[in-house]
Amino acid sequence: MRPRHLRLATTVALPLLAASAQTRADEGMWLPEQLPALAETLAARGLELPAAQLADLDAYPLSAIISLGGCSASFVSDDGLAVTNHHCVGDALQHNSTEERNLIEDGYYAATRADELWAGPGSRIYVTTRITDVTSDVLGAIPEGASDVERFEAIELATKELVTACEAPGGVRCEVADFFAGAEFRLLERMEIQDVRLVYAPAESIGFYGGDDDNWMWPRHTGDWSFLRAYVSPSGAPAPYSPDNVPYHPATHLELRQEDLEDGDFVMVAGYPGGTYRYRTGAEMAWARDVTYPWNIATMTDLIAILDAVAAADPAAEVRVSDFRFGLSNYLKNNEGMLDSFRAGGAVERAQARDAALRASLAARTDDEARAWLAATDELTQTLEEGRETDERDRTLGWMGWSVDALSVASTAYWLAVEREKPDLERDSGYQERDWTRIRERVARLETSFVTEADSRMLDYFAHRLDGLGEPDLAPALDLLRELGAAPASGRGRGAGADAGDGDVLARGVRAAYAATLLTDSDARLSLLDASRVDLEQSRDPIVRLAVALYPLRRAIDDEANARDGALGRLRPQVLAAVRELSTAPIYPDANSTLRVTFGNVAGYPGPDGVWYLPFTTANGVAAKHTGVFPFDAPDALLDAIANDQRGPWLSPGLGAVPVNFLSTLDTTGGNSGSATLDSRGRLCGLLFDGNYESMASDWLFDPVRTRSIHVSTAYMLWVMSEVDHTDRLLDELGVAH
Amino acid sequence: MRPRHLRLATTVALPLLAASAQTRADEGMWLPEQLPALAETLAARGLELPAAQLADLDAYPLSAIISLGGCSASFVSDDGLAVTNHHCVGDALQHNSTEERNLIEDGYYAATRADELWAGPGSRIYVTTRITDVTSDVLGAIPEGASDVERFEAIELATKELVTACEAPGGVRCEVADFFAGAEFRLLERMEIQDVRLVYAPAESIGFYGGDDDNWMWPRHTGDWSFLRAYVSPSGAPAPYSPDNVPYHPATHLELRQEDLEDGDFVMVAGYPGGTYRYRTGAEMAWARDVTYPWNIATMTDLIAILDAVAAADPAAEVRVSDFRFGLSNYLKNNEGMLDSFRAGGAVERAQARDAALRASLAARTDDEARAWLAATDELTQTLEEGRETDERDRTLGWMGWSVDALSVASTAYWLAVEREKPDLERDSGYQERDWTRIRERVARLETSFVTEADSRMLDYFAHRLDGLGEPDLAPALDLLRELGAAPASGRGRGAGADAGDGDVLARGVRAAYAATLLTDSDARLSLLDASRVDLEQSRDPIVRLAVALYPLRRAIDDEANARDGALGRLRPQVLAAVRELSTAPIYPDANSTLRVTFGNVAGYPGPDGVWYLPFTTANGVAAKHTGVFPFDAPDALLDAIANDQRGPWLSPGLGAVPVNFLSTLDTTGGNSGSATLDSRGRLCGLLFDGNYESMASDWLFDPVRTRSIHVSTAYMLWVMSEVDHTDRLLDELGVAH
Repeated sequence: MRPRHLRLATTVALPLLAASAQTRADEGMWLPEQLPALAETLAARGLELPAAQLADLDAYPLSAIISLGGCSASFVSDDGLAVTNHHCVGDALQHNSTEERNLIEDGYYAATRADELWAGPGSRIYVTTRITDVTSDVLGAIPEGASDVERFEAIELATKELVTACEAPGGVRCEVADFFAGAEFRLLERMEIQDVRLVYAPAESIGFYGGDDDNWMWPRHTGDWSFLRAYVSPSGAPAPYSPDNVPYHPATHLELRQEDLEDGDFVMVAGYPGGTYRYRTGAEMAWARDVTYPWNIATMTDLIAILDAVAAADPAAEVRVSDFRFGLSNYLKNNEGMLDSFRAGGAVERAQARDAALRASLAARTDDEARAWLAATDELTQTLEEGRETDERDRTLGWMGWSVDALSVASTAYWLAVEREKPDLERDSGYQERDWTRIRERVARLETSFVTEADSRMLDYFAHRLDGLGEPDLAPALDLLRELGAAPASGRGRGAGADAGDGDVLARGVRAAYAATLLTDSDARLSLLDASRVDLEQSRDPIVRLAVALYPLRRAIDDEANARDGALGRLRPQVLAAVRELSTAPIYPDANSTLRVTFGNVAGYPGPDGVWYLPFTTANGVAAKHTGVFPFDAPDALLDAIANDQRGPWLSPGLGAVPVNFLSTLDTTGGNSGSATLDSRGRLCGLLFDGNYESMASDWLFDPVRTRSIHVSTAYMLWVMSEVDHTDRLLDELGVAH
Repeated sequence: MRPRHLRLATTVALPLLAASAQTRADEGMWLPEQLPALAETLAARGLELPAAQLADLDAYPLSAIISLGGCSASFVSDDGLAVTNHHCVGDALQHNSTEERNLIEDGYYAATRADELWAGPGSRIYVTTRITDVTSDVLGAIPEGASDVERFEAIELATKELVTACEAPGGVRCEVADFFAGAEFRLLERMEIQDVRLVYAPAESIGFYGGDDDNWMWPRHTGDWSFLRAYVSPSGAPAPYSPDNVPYHPATHLELRQEDLEDGDFVMVAGYPGGTYRYRTGAEMAWARDVTYPWNIATMTDLIAILDAVAAADPAAEVRVSDFRFGLSNYLKNNEGMLDSFRAGGAVERAQARDAALRASLAARTDDEARAWLAATDELTQTLEEGRETDERDRTLGWMGWSVDALSVASTAYWLAVEREKPDLERDSGYQERDWTRIRERVARLETSFVTEADSRMLDYFAHRLDGLGEPDLAPALDLLRELGAAPASGRGRGAGADAGDGDVLARGVRAAYAATLLTDSDARLSLLDASRVDLEQSRDPIVRLAVALYPLRRAIDDEANARDGALGRLRPQVLAAVRELSTAPIYPDANSTLRVTFGNVAGYPGPDGVWYLPFTTANGVAAKHTGVFPFDAPDALLDAIANDQRGPWLSPGLGAVPVNFLSTLDTTGGNSGSATLDSRGRLCGLLFDGNYESMASDWLFDPVRTRSIHVSTAYMLWVMSEVDHTDRLLDELGVAH
C-alpha cells in the first residue's frame, strides 16, 4: 500500500577526481546463472570459491540467502535464525509496540525462544528454490499480429498460467519476472514461510544511530542489524502463525567470518535488489530530472510536514506514523541525491550522448536489423512521450493511493470486488485468489499505523492538488467531496464534521468524509474486503463513495498503462539488442527484486576536494559523534564499552578499534537492504544496508568512481551483542565465543 | 595597540587514529645556527642543500627571508619585490581604501611601478642581518644576591645598553630576545625598511575565499598571497616614505619552483613565529583551559557582537572595523580550537603526567643539582599561583587597553609622558626615544580604523565588567565615569551625551565621555602624544582623565609583573635544564618572533573517523564550494578560468587540476603567516598561511599526528596572476613565462 523501505543504492556521475589510486566500483547485478562465465574475473578479484558454486541455488551460500519481500536476509543458524537490517523490521517493531513499550526506541531481545514475537501480518520469509527460463512459453503465447494491448494481455495470461501450475503443489510462491526489459522471462519458485518472529533488534540509538542526518552518508556509524526466526508447522511445512509452530531448519546457513576484514578484501553481496533503470533513454532521465524528481521532492516535503504536525499535536501518533515517515524521508533524500547528482555530474547528458552514439552507429548501417532497431528507437521515444500527457494527474493519484490509507483500502476493496466477479485466471495480477491473504494482511497491518488525522490531512492535501489540475475526468470524485462539504454536518455525531466557514468546501468535504466514514476502524477496513461490488456501489460511506467515483478513471489509466507496457515490452528489447551487440562487456539485466550477486572489494572513495573517505569507521567514531540528542544519542552501555571493552576478536588490529561500518565497490540498490555481505569464502562478514549519497544516480547510469555500498560489519554486530546487549543465547546459537 | 593577525598554528592532542600509514608532524622551530647539527635528519627528509648553508644569514635562502613585524615575507626579485599573505596586508588595504574604492573587497594591482601605494604608517620590512649570543653580557649584569625585581631591572638595563650600542650606527633596528625561557639571550640586528608599498593583492573573494567559515579548516581554498615592495632612499639607505625613494636591491631573492609538488616532498619554512609555550607546566595549561580561554571566548564573542551591531547600523564603519573584527574572530576560533583540543585530547593531562614524571625522577636523586631543580619546580608553581589572584582584573584591563582605541591612546600618551621625564636608558622598554616613531605610527593608523560608536560601546562593555569585579583599586576610574554619568550633559553640544534615564549611570558616563572627548579626532590623538605629564594631569578631556585615573593601578600591575618576570626568568631555566638533561632529542627554544626554520614533508592527516584529509586541494574545489554568497563568492573570471584554462605548467598532472592549498608536517605558529615555503633546493613553492584546527593546542604540547601547516601553492598564485588577474608586469619581474 505504500513504498516499503525505499532505500535505493545508486550513483552520482560526478566528474572524475584525478586522485592517485582510484578504485573503481564494480557494475553488475548478476543473475547467479551468469557467474560461471565471470569465473576468471571473480578469481582475479579474490573469490576463493568455485564460481559455479555461486550459481547453485541449492548449495552454500545461495541456499542461505532469503528475501523478506522488501528486504533481503540470510539464515545464520540451523534453527532458522535469520539476520537482516534493523530498518527492515520496522513493521515488526511497530506491530509489537504499545503505549507502554516502544520497541522502535528501545529495541527488543527475546531472552528465551518463547519470548520471540510474531512479526505481524504480512511478514514473510521467501527462499528461492528454483529459477526456470520461461521466455519461450511467455513470448510464444503472443498471437501473430497482436496489438500492444493484446500483447500485454497474452503475456499476463501466460504468466498467470505458469504461476498457477507452479503453485499447484502448495507451500511455494511463484512469480514470472521479466529480464532485459521484457526480452527474457524466468519463473521463480520460492518457499513462502508465513510465521516470522522477531528475535532481537538493538535500540534505535544503535540500529538507527545517525538517523536521517547520516542516512545515505559517509562516514557512517549505524548498527543496522536485527534477527528474525522462521517458523513452520510441526510437520515442517510453511504455515500461518501458530504457537504450535516450530523453528524451520534451512538447507544451509551462513558461516561467520572471524578474521579482520581489510581495505581491498574481496566481498560480494547476494540479495534481492528492487529496481534499476540502466537501459533507459537519456530522454527518460531528463524527464525524471526535470519533472518527476522535483515533483516528488515537493510532495514528500509537504507530506512529512503534515505527519510532523500531526505527531507534534498527538504524541501517540508519533510511533504510528514513524515507519511511513522514515520511508518518506529516506526516499526524499534519495530523490534529492538523484537530482544533485544528475545536475552536478551530467549523467543525463552522458546518457543522451550514449543514445546519440547508438543512433549514429545504427544510422550508418544499411542492414534490415539496424533499420528495425532504429525504427524501434524512434517508436520508443514517441511512446514514452505519449505517456507524459497525463503524467502529473496519474502521479498525483498514485501518491494519493499510497498515502491515504482509508481511501486506499476502499479502492482496493472495490477493485477486488470487480475482479472477484471474473474467473481467477482473468483477474488482474495482484487480485487473484492467491493474492487475497496478502491484501488482507496489508490492510490488517494498518491497525498499528493508521492515524485518522494524518489520513484526513493527506486526503485534503491531494484533493486540493488534484483540483488545481482542472482535469475534467477528476470531476466525479472532487464533486463528491464538494457535495459533502456543502451539506450540513451529517451522521455519526463526531462533531469534527463540516463546520461551514472553516476552510473551503473541499476541505470541509474531506473533514465530513472522515467524520462519517467507518474506515477509521480496523475491523471495518478488514470487513470491507469481503463486500461485493453492489454492496460497495450502494454504500453511503463517503470514503467508499469516493473510491467508487475514482474507479473509472483508475481503470482507464490502468488500461492505458497496460497498452503502453505492451508497446514498451515490444520496443525496449529491440533497442537493448542493439546495445548488446555494440557492447564489449557482458550485460546483466536491470534489478527486478530477483536474486542477484554483485562482487567487488572493500574500498574508500574520493570525497569533496581534499578529502578521501576511508573504507572503515570505528567504534571511536560512534563516541565522537555522540551528542546525547537523537539521532546521536548512543546508549551509556555502548559508550562505556567503547571506552573500556574494545577487544579481540572484534577489535581490528589495523584500525586499533572495533570496525563499525565499511564501504565496498559493490553494485546494489533498494531491496538489497539486509543482504549478507560475504567474504572470499562465502562467509558472513557484514550486512549491506545503504549506498552512499554520491551513488544514487547509478540506478540510472552507473558511476564507477564514487559508487559505494555501505555495510555494517559483523565484528560490530557481534561485539555489541556480546558487550552491550548481552544476547548470550543468540551468540551461542551462532557459535560465537563471548 | 591590538593583537595583529592572531593566527596561531598549533595542535590538538587527539587520541591516535590507528590509520595504516601515518605521517607524523615534525616538531621543532629551529634557530638557523642549530641546523648543521641536524644535517643528517635534514638529508634523510630530503633536503638537497648543505645544512650549513641554511644556517648562514648572508647566504641563499635565509638572506631573502624578511619580517613585516607581525607577519613573515620573502624577497622574490632583485627590485625588492616581496611576497607575503593577503591577510598580512589588511592595514595597507584599509589605509588605501576610500568610500569609493574598497581595496579590501576589490584587491589592488599596480599596473605600473608608479601605481604602487604606500602601505601606510607603521608598515615595515625587517631583514635580519646578524644574530649574536649575548647571554653572558645579560646574565653577567645581574648583581650577586639580587632580588627578583632587581634581577628584572638589571636584565632590562643590560638589554637596553646592548640595543643602544647596536643601533648607534643607524639604519638598523636591534633587539635582545631571550631563549629557553631566559636561559640564553641573543642580540638581533635587523635592517629596517620604512617605505613599504602595496603592489598587488587579489580580491577578497580569492585572497580570503572561505572567510571565517574556512579559517583554520581543511580542506581549504584560499588564495592568501599579496605583494609588497621595499623602497629606500636614492643612496640605498632605509628612509621614511618619499616619492623620491627607489626600490631596494636585496642581497638575494628566492627562486621559484617550476615543477609540480607531490605528496611526501620535502618542504621547509623560514619565518618569524610569534610565540609558543612548549615548556610551560601542566598547571599553566590547566589554567588556560579552565580560566583564560573560556574568558577570552566569552569576551571576544561579545566584542564581535558589538562590532557587528555598529557595522550593521553604519555601513561606512564596516570597512573601518573589518581588520580588528578579522583579528578577533580569528583569535576566537583559535581559542575555541584550543579548548576543543585540550578537552578532547587530554593535552593538559599529558603535560601534567610529564611534570609528575619529571618530579619523580628528580625526587629519586640525591645530588644537589636535582634538589635545586626540584626546589625551583616548587617555587615556580608557587610563583605562578600568586599571579592568579588578580588575573581576571588584569586580563580585563588588558583587553580594554587593546580594544578601546581612545583610551589606549590616552593611556599610552600618559605613560609616555611619565617615562619621558627619565633619562632614555631608564625608560621602560617600548617607551624609549627609539620607540617614539612607532608609537606615533600606531596612533596615526587609527585614522582609517577608528569608529567612535564602536569605541564607546566597547568602553561601556568593559566598564561594566570591571564594575562587576568589585575591586577597590578600580574605584578611581569607575567613580570618574559615574561622576560623568551623573552630571548634566556637558560640553561640546553633540547632543548624544548623558540623557538621564537612558541606561545606568556608568553607561551615561561613557556616553558623556565620548560626547566630550577630543580623541575621536585623528589630529587630537596624535597631538596628545606630545603633551607633558602635567598637561595630561590637568586635562578636562574625560578620556584623558580616565587614563590618568587608571595609571596608578596599571603601574602597580606592571611592577608586579616585572617582579614575577624576574622570578620566572630565574626559575624556568632551572626547570628547563632538568628537562634538557632528561631528554634524548635536541631541544629548540620556544618561538619568540625571531627567525626560525622548520622542516618536514607534504602530507595529509587523519580527519574524523572514516575520513583522510588529502594533502592537496584543487581549483575544482574552489568552484565546488562556490555559492555566490560571501565568503564563497569566487569571481566569474576565476570560475571561467577553472572551467576553461587549467593548464600547464600550473596544472598538476597527478591531480589533474591546478593545486590550490597544501598541507605539510611543519611546526609553525602565528607570525609565520606569509613565510616562504621552500622546497628541497630552497626554491619558493608556496606560502604558509595557516595551521589546521586540530593543530592549535600544539602551541602548548606538540601533537605529532594531526599537526599540519596549511600553504597556498605557488602554482595557484601564478596561475591566478596569469589567467585571472593578468599581473603581467609582476610575472615578468618574477621571470615567469605566461
